[in-house]
Amino acid sequence: MTNEFAPNLSAKLAGKFIVLDGPDGCGKSTQVHRLAEYLRKTGGGPLTVRDPGDTDIGNAIREILLGEKYARRDIRCELMLFMASRAQLVSEKIRPALSAGRTVLSDRYVSSSCAYQGAGGLDVAEIIQTADMATGNLWPDLTVVLDVDSEQGFERIQTYRSQVALDAMEQKGLEFHRKVRDIFLKLPSFYPRPVLICPAEGTVEQVHRRILEILCDVHF
Amino acid sequence: MTNEFAPNLSAKLAGKFIVLDGPDGCGKSTQVHRLAEYLRKTGGGPLTVRDPGDTDIGNAIREILLGEKYARRDIRCELMLFMASRAQLVSEKIRPALSAGRTVLSDRYVSSSCAYQGAGGLDVAEIIQTADMATGNLWPDLTVVLDVDSEQGFERIQTYRSQVALDAMEQKGLEFHRKVRDIFLKLPSFYPRPVLICPAEGTVEQVHRRILEILCDVHF
Repeated sequence: MTNEFAPNLSAKLAGKFIVLDGPDGCGKSTQVHRLAEYLRKTGGGPLTVRDPGDTDIGNAIREILLGEKYARRDIRCELMLFMASRAQLVSEKIRPALSAGRTVLSDRYVSSSCAYQGAGGLDVAEIIQTADMATGNLWPDLTVVLDVDSEQGFERIQTYRSQVALDAMEQKGLEFHRKVRDIFLKLPSFYPRPVLICPAEGTVEQVHRRILEILCDVHF
Repeated sequence: MTNEFAPNLSAKLAGKFIVLDGPDGCGKSTQVHRLAEYLRKTGGGPLTVRDPGDTDIGNAIREILLGEKYARRDIRCELMLFMASRAQLVSEKIRPALSAGRTVLSDRYVSSSCAYQGAGGLDVAEIIQTADMATGNLWPDLTVVLDVDSEQGFERIQTYRSQVALDAMEQKGLEFHRKVRDIFLKLPSFYPRPVLICPAEGTVEQVHRRILEILCDVHF
């Protein structure tokens, strides 16, 4: 990958809020870092964030979300905790970076709440309404959903987690994973801002290239 | 106070959800316990709850809300944390008790979010919409707001807190306290369920008597 592929991409993405999302095992964390690296090498100064977490409060909330101690957690409580972490992330990091003209790359965002708490039984329209309140109407300029076949995604998780306990989000099994994927694939039809689906099979570099192509082609 | 004053009150309140709310220093915690005691003596089996808190997750959230470490907390994050604690309380305790025909008496509820996060600058209509999502539309049959003059309420807090640090909610000063009281007083005009204002000056027994009168008179 050279500068020539997308000579003006860093400038085009200045002040833009880009989310990479998708089911567990789709490779989005790797791609967020690969994209950030690319933007840095081509003159950009992106901020990368991870939702939930990435602030003191967000990390404390993340511990509640992942703690086995809190396994009796109600789905609405879960949604509100994700929204609380997100509200703090927006206020403390995302808005200031966008105001300073930086590109913000986020690993997950409201799209994940739609997929996971939606798969858990909540109404996606109400999730979006709640997100409006939590984020003060801050929506990404573009959300790229990395799509993998549920079996493959689920297998990837189990492989790279084989040495450690699966976390609470990942313990719910293949059927839940399928529901999550279905909502991610339908996201373009109900999300308030543009969503593009990007196939995530292949090598890290192949997927990275696909994401760059999407970002070069998109009109903000 | 004798049984004769309100002979059928325990039966009337069976399966009802009653909230006592009001500014800090209004005496609502004392009154919740006094009312619960009265209902128990007259044949009822009320459940008393405190919002936020009163569940394992709620207590963990409460620590974040009151922790000085998290002083940079955004107002929207604060709202979502209160809602998360409330969602768990509703699901784990309030709904099961109401289904079993018990009276539920809560020390604070969504009315407090309207007053405090409303005084912090958020829109009360949006707070109510968010509460719909958090609680799955569970609203109290009656909310009694105990009203004290802001100066007096603020003084009470400072007196009984004089030996310990004021908690985060109470550190914001008299002006904030006034805004909170104003919203509590306007609550009947915008809250989705009945709200009655009860003057809270006088002795504990006098205020208790006023609350009993309100509960005897109200039609559900």
